Amino acid sequence: MEFSSKLLEKAVDEMSQLPGVGKRTALRFVLHLLRQPKNQTLQLTSALQNMKNEVKFCDCCNNISDTQRCEICANPHRQDDIICVVEDIRDVMAIENTSSFRGLYHVLGGKISPMDGIGPNELHIEGLVDRVKQGNIKELIFALSPTMEGDTTNFYIYKQIQKYDIKTSTIARGISVGNELEYTDEVTLGRSILNRIPFEVSLQS
Amino acid sequence: MEFSSKLLEKAVDEMSQLPGVGKRTALRFVLHLLRQPKNQTLQLTSALQNMKNEVKFCDCCNNISDTQRCEICANPHRQDDIICVVEDIRDVMAIENTSSFRGLYHVLGGKISPMDGIGPNELHIEGLVDRVKQGNIKELIFALSPTMEGDTTNFYIYKQIQKYDIKTSTIARGISVGNELEYTDEVTLGRSILNRIPFEVSLQS
Repeated sequence: MEFSSKLLEKAVDEMSQLPGVGKRTALRFVLHLLRQPKNQTLQLTSALQNMKNEVKFCDCCNNISDTQRCEICANPHRQDDIICVVEDIRDVMAIENTSSFRGLYHVLGGKISPMDGIGPNELHIEGLVDRVKQGNIKELIFALSPTMEGDTTNFYIYKQIQKYDIKTSTIARGISVGNELEYTDEVTLGRSILNRIPFEVSLQS
Repeated sequence: MEFSSKLLEKAVDEMSQLPGVGKRTALRFVLHLLRQPKNQTLQLTSALQNMKNEVKFCDCCNNISDTQRCEICANPHRQDDIICVVEDIRDVMAIENTSSFRGLYHVLGGKISPMDGIGPNELHIEGLVDRVKQGNIKELIFALSPTMEGDTTNFYIYKQIQKYDIKTSTIARGISVGNELEYTDEVTLGRSILNRIPFEVSLQS
C-alpha cells in the first residue's frame, strides 16, 4: 500500500498493531477519524493515555481498578470467604454479568504455558496462596478455561494450597443451556453424563 | 457490560466509535494496549494526534498530503493533461497500486447523494471545473463507483465541463480478469457484450 502522506502512513502503522487489525482496517479507522471533528481524535487519544497512565490493579485480587482496592474487594456486601480464580479481567466481567456469584475474585493474569514461556512466577499465584494462608477463605472455585494449560494451572494451585483446610471446586462443564444434544462434542457430552446431577437440583436452574 | 474501572470504560467507549468496532472488540483493543509497554500507547496516540493536526489536503487535487501540493501533483514526470476523477483517497491509492495511470487525480470527497444530504456544493467539483477552465487538461477519466450516485455525479460534472473542448471517459466496466463467466451478474455481462473491444487490443492486456 502506497501512502501519499507519511503522517497518514505512521498512523495506519500504529493502528495496525492492534490485535486482528490489518493495514486496510487500520486505514479505514484513520480515514474515519480524519473526517470527524478534531475533538473526537483528542477524546480518543486522551482516554487511551489516561487509562494507560492511571489505571491500577487491585492490591488484593489483581482486578483492574481506578483505586488501590477494587470495587468488588472493597464491597462489604460480598461474601469474603469464597474466591473465584480466573485468568483474565474479561472473565471477571463475564461472571459479574451473570449475577450468579457474590464472592470475591482472583485474577491470575494468564495460564501456566511453558510453550509461551509463562511459568507460575509470571502469574499472580503467590498472592492467591497468601490470601488462602490468612485463613479466612473457605472455598476456591477454579474458573479457568478447560484446556490443558488451564488444567495444569488448576493442579499447580491445588498443590500449593492442599495443606490448608479449604474446599476446592471447578465450574461445571456440560452442555450449554439451549444447545441441541446432537451437536455437542463427544468429550463434553461424555463428561456431562459422568458428572450428572440429581434431577431436583437441575429443575431449580 | 460492567466495568470495574471508569478509565477503562471511557477508553472502550471511545474506541467503539471507530467504524465496525463494537464494545467487545474495543475492549480487546484496550486490554491489548494495557498489556503492552507504555511506549506503544504513546506512539499510537501521538501518531493519531500528529496526523489529525498536521495532515493537509492538496491545493490542487484535494488528495491527502504532508505538503500544500501533493507528491503526485508536484511530480514533473506525471502527465499533466489528464485527470482521473475519484471519490476518495482510497481510490487514489488503489489506482496508484496498479501502476497503470501516470496522469493526475482529482478527489471529490464523495458522491452526490441527496438522500445523505450531499449535494454538489459539499464536493470538490468547483476546483475540478477550475482546473479544466485553465485549458491545459485534455481528458477527464471518471473513476467513480458504478452506482446511481456515481452516475449522477459523473453526469453533473459532465454538464459543467461540456462547453470546454475536452475528452471524457469512464473506466471500463466488464467481467473481472480471472472471473468465471457464469458467475458474473447479468447487467455487467450484458454491458460487457455491448461494449466489446477489438480482439487485438484485448490480447495486449
